[in-house]
Amino acid sequence: MIRVALDAMGGDGAPAVPVRAARAALAEDDGELEVLLVGGPDVLRREIDASGGRPARLSVVAAAEAVEDDESPARAVRRKPDSSIAVGLRLQREGEADAFVSAGSTGAVMAGSVLLLGSLPGVDRPAIGAVVPTAAEPILLLDVGANVTTRPRHLRQFAHLGAIYVRELLGISEPRVGLLNVGEEPEKGDDVAVAAHDLLRSDAALRFAGNVEGHRIIEGDCDVLVCDGFVGNVVLKFYESIAGRVVALLEEASGGELRPEHRGIRRILDYAEYGGAPLLGVDGVAIVCHGASPPRAVRNAIGVAAQAVRSGIVDELERDLRSMAPRPR
Amino acid sequence: MIRVALDAMGGDGAPAVPVRAARAALAEDDGELEVLLVGGPDVLRREIDASGGRPARLSVVAAAEAVEDDESPARAVRRKPDSSIAVGLRLQREGEADAFVSAGSTGAVMAGSVLLLGSLPGVDRPAIGAVVPTAAEPILLLDVGANVTTRPRHLRQFAHLGAIYVRELLGISEPRVGLLNVGEEPEKGDDVAVAAHDLLRSDAALRFAGNVEGHRIIEGDCDVLVCDGFVGNVVLKFYESIAGRVVALLEEASGGELRPEHRGIRRILDYAEYGGAPLLGVDGVAIVCHGASPPRAVRNAIGVAAQAVRSGIVDELERDLRSMAPRPR
Repeated sequence: MIRVALDAMGGDGAPAVPVRAARAALAEDDGELEVLLVGGPDVLRREIDASGGRPARLSVVAAAEAVEDDESPARAVRRKPDSSIAVGLRLQREGEADAFVSAGSTGAVMAGSVLLLGSLPGVDRPAIGAVVPTAAEPILLLDVGANVTTRPRHLRQFAHLGAIYVRELLGISEPRVGLLNVGEEPEKGDDVAVAAHDLLRSDAALRFAGNVEGHRIIEGDCDVLVCDGFVGNVVLKFYESIAGRVVALLEEASGGELRPEHRGIRRILDYAEYGGAPLLGVDGVAIVCHGASPPRAVRNAIGVAAQAVRSGIVDELERDLRSMAPRPR
Repeated sequence: MIRVALDAMGGDGAPAVPVRAARAALAEDDGELEVLLVGGPDVLRREIDASGGRPARLSVVAAAEAVEDDESPARAVRRKPDSSIAVGLRLQREGEADAFVSAGSTGAVMAGSVLLLGSLPGVDRPAIGAVVPTAAEPILLLDVGANVTTRPRHLRQFAHLGAIYVRELLGISEPRVGLLNVGEEPEKGDDVAVAAHDLLRSDAALRFAGNVEGHRIIEGDCDVLVCDGFVGNVVLKFYESIAGRVVALLEEASGGELRPEHRGIRRILDYAEYGGAPLLGVDGVAIVCHGASPPRAVRNAIGVAAQAVRSGIVDELERDLRSMAPRPR
């Protein structure tokens, strides 16, 4: 049994979206999945009843509070021990759930995960990874917002976290790792990028693909692309916005539906396919979704969470990080 | 008469592309423009002859060398005083030209401009601005690569440089200035972004529009968007690559030509329209183009250079920068 705790109070469409997402995930699953909806029991029971009754393997875990978007994430986690985020993560710590999924405050999920699940040994800072479509295969971009500044050693840790993730979850046996930068040459970029290039290149456990410039992202010629959370966040949000706008314009131009000959474009622009960004480097499985996620994206995130549990990725990460040769910091 | 010196040795298609671009710019102009092609005289005369003879107001200025892409820009400018970039910029310093346009090494044009034209008073570091299409009107994004790291005061200088540029060249009387960041709130981002937000907000000479997240770039709800040259470079190159790929896929899907109903998409994705990024903060007019620029983009850059000269933007910038109240740095 794989038990996914789902934040039923987080996201613009809560609690309706999480309830529908849970229902859809369970309907598709072959019987191994269990979803624990975490939130206000009364409102959740009403929502479940209204949407057709409680399916098997869906249960409700009471959480009295919700973290609001305008709260300081770290403070919210400490001051609201009964928030759906804190309760959901605590279920995992206490062995009552295997994973946590939330479309609520990303900052609070991150702060809560570090506090309640802890970081893996060798990880200074967890990172948020986002699976980004390209003209070739999707790649994992990280960090996309957990850390606005990074040191070279953090980028190396991100490289390891990302490489194991795409190996275990995307099935890429020897992932190529790129470093997002302003030029191809090793000496390009700021001091952090130059030093990170050097660390990544001399790490025999990584298949380093060198610096990747902005216009190469879309080519998909690496599997993992590491960067600081500032540039990663800007690039990810920018990509999503262009993608959404181009697809909307195409649909509008053809009267509502995308033309069959434009499906190739949708493939490189469609985010909802992926839905759910893993928080990597914590001692557990935590997946964050956009606040505006539709049920389909949250359902996919539940699927990603279950897959992460099934793959045993947390153990894999621990093993890999232990084997990281100690390096000058 | 407006005299534009054009680097005839820079860019992937040199010297054919610059010669064709010069010819096109002169053909369209009403008689006020003069183009000085800077490069190897023999090869240029042959190219001019082959392309139909020398038009009026086109002349050749000899430069014995070219800066190669793999050279260190600063070193190349110092060690090659007879490069087309150095000669072209020197023409402007000596009053024999009013502007310089190059599709050669951006780094060398920047280093050369600082060395040979000098920076404007009050400017610590010049910035490269790029006019970026959006769903509304185009905006000026800067810096897109001159400075991989910036301090808050640099971002404030970029804001002033950008605001005057869009006022004089895009005709926007009170430009809104945004700060590219990972969140809307003033406290979001790294230390530089937080301090820059504060500087920009308290600058009465600027119309500050606040932080702009990655997904808001495309909305065009500011006219000038400031950022460090690392993130600006990544975003610009990423945008160009997506734009190129989507337009290519659309053309392919409709058998070569863009469908009329897709012109709205092209409008937000078409870079060649703009062609030519100003180097702002130097005491003169210098416009850089992509190395891969087609003649149309270089022709547009010549037009931008002429317009910059006509607008008297360098004087405007000097006046504005002088009026910048001294602030804590």
